[in-house]
Amino acid sequence: MSSHEIMVMFLSLGLLLAAARFLGEMAKRLRQPTVIGEILAGILLGPTVLGSLAPQLTAFLFPTQGNNAVAFAAITTIAVALFLLVAGIELDFANILKQGKTVLLIGFFAISVPFLIGMAAAWSAPESLGRMAHTKPLAFAMFFATLVSVSALPVIAKILMDLNLYRSDMGMVVIGVAALNDLACWVIFAFILSITESPARYTLPVSYTIALTALFTLLMLTAGRWLIHAVWPWIQAHASWPSGVLSFVLSLALLGAAFTEWIGIHAIFGTFMMGIAIGDTPHLRERTRATMDNFISSFFAPLFFASIGLKMDFVANFDWLLTLLLLVLSCGSKIVGCLLGARLCRMAPNESLALAFCLNARGAMEIILGLVAYQLGIISNTLMESVVIVALATSLMSGPIMQRILKLKEARRFTDYMAAKCFIKWLAAQERQKTIEELTNAICTVHNHLDASHIAAAVWLREQIMPTGLDDGVAVPHTRVKGLNTPLVALGISETGIDFDAADGRPARIICLILTPKNNDGAEMEIIADIATTLQNREIRDQIFHVASYTEFLALMKTAKER
Amino acid sequence: MSSHEIMVMFLSLGLLLAAARFLGEMAKRLRQPTVIGEILAGILLGPTVLGSLAPQLTAFLFPTQGNNAVAFAAITTIAVALFLLVAGIELDFANILKQGKTVLLIGFFAISVPFLIGMAAAWSAPESLGRMAHTKPLAFAMFFATLVSVSALPVIAKILMDLNLYRSDMGMVVIGVAALNDLACWVIFAFILSITESPARYTLPVSYTIALTALFTLLMLTAGRWLIHAVWPWIQAHASWPSGVLSFVLSLALLGAAFTEWIGIHAIFGTFMMGIAIGDTPHLRERTRATMDNFISSFFAPLFFASIGLKMDFVANFDWLLTLLLLVLSCGSKIVGCLLGARLCRMAPNESLALAFCLNARGAMEIILGLVAYQLGIISNTLMESVVIVALATSLMSGPIMQRILKLKEARRFTDYMAAKCFIKWLAAQERQKTIEELTNAICTVHNHLDASHIAAAVWLREQIMPTGLDDGVAVPHTRVKGLNTPLVALGISETGIDFDAADGRPARIICLILTPKNNDGAEMEIIADIATTLQNREIRDQIFHVASYTEFLALMKTAKER
Repeated sequence: MSSHEIMVMFLSLGLLLAAARFLGEMAKRLRQPTVIGEILAGILLGPTVLGSLAPQLTAFLFPTQGNNAVAFAAITTIAVALFLLVAGIELDFANILKQGKTVLLIGFFAISVPFLIGMAAAWSAPESLGRMAHTKPLAFAMFFATLVSVSALPVIAKILMDLNLYRSDMGMVVIGVAALNDLACWVIFAFILSITESPARYTLPVSYTIALTALFTLLMLTAGRWLIHAVWPWIQAHASWPSGVLSFVLSLALLGAAFTEWIGIHAIFGTFMMGIAIGDTPHLRERTRATMDNFISSFFAPLFFASIGLKMDFVANFDWLLTLLLLVLSCGSKIVGCLLGARLCRMAPNESLALAFCLNARGAMEIILGLVAYQLGIISNTLMESVVIVALATSLMSGPIMQRILKLKEARRFTDYMAAKCFIKWLAAQERQKTIEELTNAICTVHNHLDASHIAAAVWLREQIMPTGLDDGVAVPHTRVKGLNTPLVALGISETGIDFDAADGRPARIICLILTPKNNDGAEMEIIADIATTLQNREIRDQIFHVASYTEFLALMKTAKER
Repeated sequence: MSSHEIMVMFLSLGLLLAAARFLGEMAKRLRQPTVIGEILAGILLGPTVLGSLAPQLTAFLFPTQGNNAVAFAAITTIAVALFLLVAGIELDFANILKQGKTVLLIGFFAISVPFLIGMAAAWSAPESLGRMAHTKPLAFAMFFATLVSVSALPVIAKILMDLNLYRSDMGMVVIGVAALNDLACWVIFAFILSITESPARYTLPVSYTIALTALFTLLMLTAGRWLIHAVWPWIQAHASWPSGVLSFVLSLALLGAAFTEWIGIHAIFGTFMMGIAIGDTPHLRERTRATMDNFISSFFAPLFFASIGLKMDFVANFDWLLTLLLLVLSCGSKIVGCLLGARLCRMAPNESLALAFCLNARGAMEIILGLVAYQLGIISNTLMESVVIVALATSLMSGPIMQRILKLKEARRFTDYMAAKCFIKWLAAQERQKTIEELTNAICTVHNHLDASHIAAAVWLREQIMPTGLDDGVAVPHTRVKGLNTPLVALGISETGIDFDAADGRPARIICLILTPKNNDGAEMEIIADIATTLQNREIRDQIFHVASYTEFLALMKTAKER
């Protein structure tokens, strides 16, 4: 590679990564999956937007020919392979086995119903659904059916975590079914690949490919898994930690990818199955898992998903009708299948419906499968664009719909209700009532429709009835305020300490004023509990006194619960 | 990329990573820098060994033409750039400033003496030292001088840690000087690159390159550094953690690489300077740093260093005389320079000598600089091979020589003195004397020249004088044994607990028998202290009861101190 090519490579990767992560974070702020923002970054920098405004710039940054195109393809290929390694690791195979009948029964219907409906649809109207002219109808129908029946374990796990359902009974069943769904769809997909003839294929006879795919899948779930589990402690004992184990996992993944690519199915199937075998080890330490997950999801995954947006022009060929058709077909068949299975297992109606919508999220998985089919020339780029939209749409609707069905609330953090001006370092006040007034004034400066003196009096009254000093120098004066729509919090730090009559007798140095709406019961206790658990760590309490700004304070509070 | 090319890419990367890490770990076991093993893996799989035995296989795995060669070049280029990002992060710029005069004075001599001697040598005999015919004598002399004067901060830090000197006064000075040396050499190197004309160069005028290099260096150490520090808490507060910060760092590094490549100096200078600016933030959390360090050093670094071994045939063109000359010149000039500086600062003679040998380690840094010069066609491949050997030789000799000069011992871990048969789960014995006998017998089965009954009696005698039960169910019966050359340890786990008369009254469930040589004072206390600190963590003690084998036990003990 020449110096110019190296420069372009670093520049394009740097820009793409920055844009993908920035928009990914924006999506997250709007409580949407990050993958949406990441793909959007590619759409913005690719032919759809930048390419139509400044075609030369796009051609300079992301050439479609030459060494840079090869380098970019190599990096995104490795990126998606490593992303599926992480996805495989997160798939808890032992959990599927453990959950047993319920998961198997629901899983069977959740996969077979959409698969059959999708197959029937694709078989009866292949041209209008985006079959490429040279693709055999059967191969197209099977690919299409897989796209309709796939679900996305990572997105589903994220939705359940956001809704605080991950460790519930229902959550365990959903995760089990999603894992089974993922696994089954990928195995089906590998088999379809193995019987598909394509110009890009390696030169192994089809019968060999089928046999080797079956053998590989079986081995990875039995003997291979066992072998990895047996070797693992030896590596952990004798190699450096955690980098020895990390290299072991990554070499295995790369070799697995080479093997599945060689037998004629895609490299990502190899890393995915390797991930399943690895993730199942009781010896896998949290730090090893987190290191891989963090690095891959902050470097490789954004680059890969952004590259999808770069690949096609989402405006020129976009077909609204096809997208709508695919969306209705996907959601309808998946929900019918899941409801059937869940009701057979005697799940409550609202839980069955919530489960159905949760499993309907297709996210990254459908996009990756679609991309492989597109690159092999099995589906048209119009269908591929619809696949991306449907995958994102189904992921977007899952969370809010589940929340509505199950009448859930999201976990609240006290910092969500603060503003920069409501963080006071240091407090001027030296005693209790003055402190309450100072904090109330801070809130009322930001929300100037509130009556400061009235509120301060109410808080002071409440304080006199029962003092709000907690242990370890924290106090939480609070009251309910009529006419408020959302809770409001102000936090002040005292240099000298102010007596809030705490049980341990120590003066309060961190004082949080909490105002909540009159009718909202849960908010007050939830915010107080959040403050107490966040500040229970002595180290965090000590660091609060050294933050230089509101931003640093927010950063500290954020990492406080995640460390 | 075709399916065949993708397969070859994954296969070659997987094999290379596995081989590099395996040999790297072997090197580490022999107490050598891992980079030696990693380069050796490349030499084995490259033209030197595999290429001469099975040339077709090497050509298949590592083609020098076509898409796979481009992909491989792209990946190793990114790998070395990220490796230098980590190296930059580890360089503590604030520490150089803080240490002030001592570091500046020693650093000045440690760099200028070897640089001037190297320059004089290269100027007077350029042909015999490996100048390429078309390289200007001045450019060659400056490159050669840089290679002679460089030092390798990561290797030096590792040596100091191994010798338990990292946090000592002397260690701080050495690290400060090494950091200054690294920084200065890279800046000098960037300037040499900026004034060198080479066919691979980008098309910027030389004067622009010089000005931009100066500007970039200055900005990164002042305003750029400040800007990163200012933005950092904002990202930590508002983006997901740690992946938001990780992406921020990696995007900056990629963009920095693109910039320095564009202005005509190498991409790695950009990531290195970016790393310095980033590593200096007080907001950088340990977890963020560890995630990058672990992933990069277990994936990217081994691939890069192995690729060096792949690049050339170390047998065909190897020049012993040149290697010896370079070695003597490098060591001699560096040691003279360091001694001069250290003595001027009134350091003790033995410490000055130890500092000189420590800074003489050139490791990865000299290899990377050499490789850039080689790829630009400034130095011959014969000189490049000598550079690799000298870099490794100077790194290898540093540790042992320092150890001898300062009369140091390495930290001992009790597991270093165990054998598989000396781990007993569960103990058959039910009381104290029988337990001692059982553990003594275990040791004597492995070391059958020892007299079991004699030793057991001695331990029992010692035990009766002063019981060895520690708190929390751990006991450490021990004695000194005449004729032993090395300590021996056996560890037994008791199901019921055995009374060892501990201060807290609890029976011992983990019993370690420790035998040490008669004359070795330090070993006994050091091993007991190691056992006590390893087992002070309640979680670790609980997990010991669930290990299934000696290997799992070793893995647990290893990670116990590192978590």
